[in-house]
Amino acid sequence: MSFQDPRRQKQLEKLIQKLGLPEQASVKWPLLDLALTHATISPTANYEQLEFIGDSVVRLAASEFLWETYPDWSVGDFSAIRKVLVSDRTLAQLANIYGLERYLLVSGSAAGDTAGQTSRLADAFEAVLGALYLSTHTLELVRPWLDPHFQQLSTEIRQDPARLNYKDALQEWTQAHYKVLPEYRVQETSQIHGDAHRFTAEVWLQGQRWSQGTGHSKKAAEQAAAKDAFLLAIKTQQSSL
Amino acid sequence: MSFQDPRRQKQLEKLIQKLGLPEQASVKWPLLDLALTHATISPTANYEQLEFIGDSVVRLAASEFLWETYPDWSVGDFSAIRKVLVSDRTLAQLANIYGLERYLLVSGSAAGDTAGQTSRLADAFEAVLGALYLSTHTLELVRPWLDPHFQQLSTEIRQDPARLNYKDALQEWTQAHYKVLPEYRVQETSQIHGDAHRFTAEVWLQGQRWSQGTGHSKKAAEQAAAKDAFLLAIKTQQSSL
Repeated sequence: MSFQDPRRQKQLEKLIQKLGLPEQASVKWPLLDLALTHATISPTANYEQLEFIGDSVVRLAASEFLWETYPDWSVGDFSAIRKVLVSDRTLAQLANIYGLERYLLVSGSAAGDTAGQTSRLADAFEAVLGALYLSTHTLELVRPWLDPHFQQLSTEIRQDPARLNYKDALQEWTQAHYKVLPEYRVQETSQIHGDAHRFTAEVWLQGQRWSQGTGHSKKAAEQAAAKDAFLLAIKTQQSSL
Repeated sequence: MSFQDPRRQKQLEKLIQKLGLPEQASVKWPLLDLALTHATISPTANYEQLEFIGDSVVRLAASEFLWETYPDWSVGDFSAIRKVLVSDRTLAQLANIYGLERYLLVSGSAAGDTAGQTSRLADAFEAVLGALYLSTHTLELVRPWLDPHFQQLSTEIRQDPARLNYKDALQEWTQAHYKVLPEYRVQETSQIHGDAHRFTAEVWLQGQRWSQGTGHSKKAAEQAAAKDAFLLAIKTQQSSL
């Protein structure tokens, strides 16, 4: 399938090249064009629906990558890391690496809106993943260039687990399963500044204490408590005993 | 690939037949076996990791189905309907239709736990989807039998939109974007019993009124207000103006 506007076609081919995909890759060009068209250009023919597909595509790509690469990791770790890999922040970073802004058709007011740029880039990036997936109905045009980024990110996360936001992960879980937010109760348990256990945080859910964690700051203690509670939650759910 | 225990192999082949897949389907049998093995049988070799994959697979299958089948629907409708299609309740129903309980290896205490059965069946069902996806790295072994169920469910939902839980959808959205829950303010605006506009609900978020809806009950009014707020939220996000 080739595209009507030769200049746009050239531009899209350049992007495919940048992604490291072969020239003869079976890309459905009209879909890729749509993925890089903002709603300000057309209220109907824009990236919104492809973004909806792409949101599932990136999730599957990340899941498959983690499963293949780290067969020994717990499902709790998988979930927490996948959350980072598919976050708007990560997707916008990747979009930036490939200079996606340059390929995105946007008009007028939206083009000058720098505040909305991160979410716009993340959305368009998801839409591109949707278009590439729908070109072959496999991840063949997605994983070859996405995997190295996932590899680097997951290595970074392993080296600095504080990048994993267990509070967010726990909140999502309690929302999904109990329709409530976890409650944090924090106390200063040591007066010594710099003490790694200066603060003690507890996670409470439905009137029960789920976990406890300590840290040098309130935030660190909450994250430690959230991690324990989240891993417990995932475990309980999976064994369903 | 064939499986070591001929009786288990026969059993799994029967399931594949029940799903309506051809006998010569390229199923990776050890993966399917794993998908139907509960953690009480083996703490390490069980369905947990495949469920993690399957959760993304069913999401992608539902997204692709909706995109292909209802090209004119809004992304807001897509999101709300996908939420129903991939819910534990739906997945457990489908698992029941295929009598998945009969194929699931569970031991001792868990087997008698009827309360955990719904989530166990939904989890195993997701794991089966994971195993079938990983057998070919496409949705070829998933969509042929899953699509008719999605078709029926989405038709039912269209006929009875009350099945769409916009309160849940809105809550998920505000959580993801603002880390807060939407607030509902409900008033009885008519004393007439049975009046379709007896109650008026408002959705408030961060000190602002987002939407308003009416209904014959508090719950109906809240759902109406949630629907407007959710569609507004999705729209705002997508145009990012």
